[in-house]
Amino acid sequence: MLQMDTVSTNLSHGGVQGVYKHKSTATGTEMTFSVFVPPHEEGAKLPVIWYLSGLTCSHANVTDKGEFRAACAELGLIFVAPDTSPRGEAVPDDAEGDYDFGLGAGFYVNATQAPFAQHYRMQDYIETELPALIAANFPADMSRQGITGHSMGGHGALTIALRNPGRFASVSAFAPIVSPLNCPWGEKALSGYLGPDRATWAAYDACALIESGARLPNLLVDQGTADSFLDSQLKTPLLTAACEKAKQPATIRMQQGYDHSYYFVSTFMNDHLRWHAACQTKV
Amino acid sequence: MLQMDTVSTNLSHGGVQGVYKHKSTATGTEMTFSVFVPPHEEGAKLPVIWYLSGLTCSHANVTDKGEFRAACAELGLIFVAPDTSPRGEAVPDDAEGDYDFGLGAGFYVNATQAPFAQHYRMQDYIETELPALIAANFPADMSRQGITGHSMGGHGALTIALRNPGRFASVSAFAPIVSPLNCPWGEKALSGYLGPDRATWAAYDACALIESGARLPNLLVDQGTADSFLDSQLKTPLLTAACEKAKQPATIRMQQGYDHSYYFVSTFMNDHLRWHAACQTKV
Repeated sequence: MLQMDTVSTNLSHGGVQGVYKHKSTATGTEMTFSVFVPPHEEGAKLPVIWYLSGLTCSHANVTDKGEFRAACAELGLIFVAPDTSPRGEAVPDDAEGDYDFGLGAGFYVNATQAPFAQHYRMQDYIETELPALIAANFPADMSRQGITGHSMGGHGALTIALRNPGRFASVSAFAPIVSPLNCPWGEKALSGYLGPDRATWAAYDACALIESGARLPNLLVDQGTADSFLDSQLKTPLLTAACEKAKQPATIRMQQGYDHSYYFVSTFMNDHLRWHAACQTKV
Repeated sequence: MLQMDTVSTNLSHGGVQGVYKHKSTATGTEMTFSVFVPPHEEGAKLPVIWYLSGLTCSHANVTDKGEFRAACAELGLIFVAPDTSPRGEAVPDDAEGDYDFGLGAGFYVNATQAPFAQHYRMQDYIETELPALIAANFPADMSRQGITGHSMGGHGALTIALRNPGRFASVSAFAPIVSPLNCPWGEKALSGYLGPDRATWAAYDACALIESGARLPNLLVDQGTADSFLDSQLKTPLLTAACEKAKQPATIRMQQGYDHSYYFVSTFMNDHLRWHAACQTKV
């Protein structure tokens, strides 16, 4: 299942911004994702930076508004932006159609609860299936990977990196949900996908994983102080405390006056990409 | 009529990206526009770069996808993005609802033909009303202005600069329509807004204006060679020929493989803004 179809390609910043779709075995649906391949020498293999998106988003938000291509072109980074959930008529959504569960809100878990268990297998999709597809179809050096994400995607980046030690040379996040066990978004999503036994949630909680001994190679986090979700949902101080207690090296920066939007993400994207590139060269 | 309402403001790249609306006397409608104000010292007055958008666009396209904020923040430029037409229930649209006339397709003219003459007064709006509003509400040095635009907005930038000698220290365009007199988009729009007398169209035709003796202080144009509108609508060679014949200094760059999208615009935005900034400091 290493086949994919090209939806579009556009030359940009000297590289190719593509959008692709494929039939996913993990989710049982067609999945769409975007990949930017920077200008490179024939035959070169390039580091891969994964960007996981937040609630309501698809691959398109960061592809349109992320302002990552100039830096990726300069630094020679492949930038992969997957979707945030399975989609399609057969895929169940939130019962009330709310934005924070179901479509656009897969939370990067393998669901165990009906009716979500059939399609909501985003952990398998992001950790296993899509990397194989990327490796097969792009000039990717899979020994040099970094991962980042925004909000729910920051949660995804942190937890995937924590559960897969050695895979990523660099980990960062923009305004991540740091502990789904301790916020309304997380409680709704994880109870819906995993059921009421909170012990099963811990594998999807960055703070709990760090407390249990999982470690990241490094960590860069930017969080806006004017983010309306900071106190209620994101709870950056829980991550700071977990890292300090576990002696997990981390640079967690509170950015004065920034909100939760792509105006914030795009502001610090360049910093994150330079940091990822620097970590990749150290591998 | 120098009042406006704030729709939104977001901190980005150290500056403020705002969206504003106001009751326009020129168009008789409510008009929305965006302004990025870079970080600056209290009391400073900053150069203003006007960006006019293309067919189907509003202020939002470049605001989301233009990748201008990093450079504007670094260079200290205010970036203004107006809408491309009047809008609202009272505003007549293309009879067939096509994208290339009416809403989103004002062509930066003052219409003279019914039923468009009442609201489609984009020339007055962009040349007179909005500059006064910007001067009154932002830290703008109106003695240091530059203008650029994309496609129909490139046509707008060129023709407004040609009709207002001395106003702009720098003029550029991304894939501009260079001669509405000589392309289907232009013929449809100008006949619809101005009527069948093609003599009245010349004031809105960059090539005709240059041929008639109007001059620009300078000109930078980028045009993608893979732009599907190049041969049928944009016709860059007509501009090159008009500039050569008139000894109008111009740097017209054909960019190999680039299309008409914002993937193209965003690629060369940084170049254009640096060029505008350099021209402004020479004033």
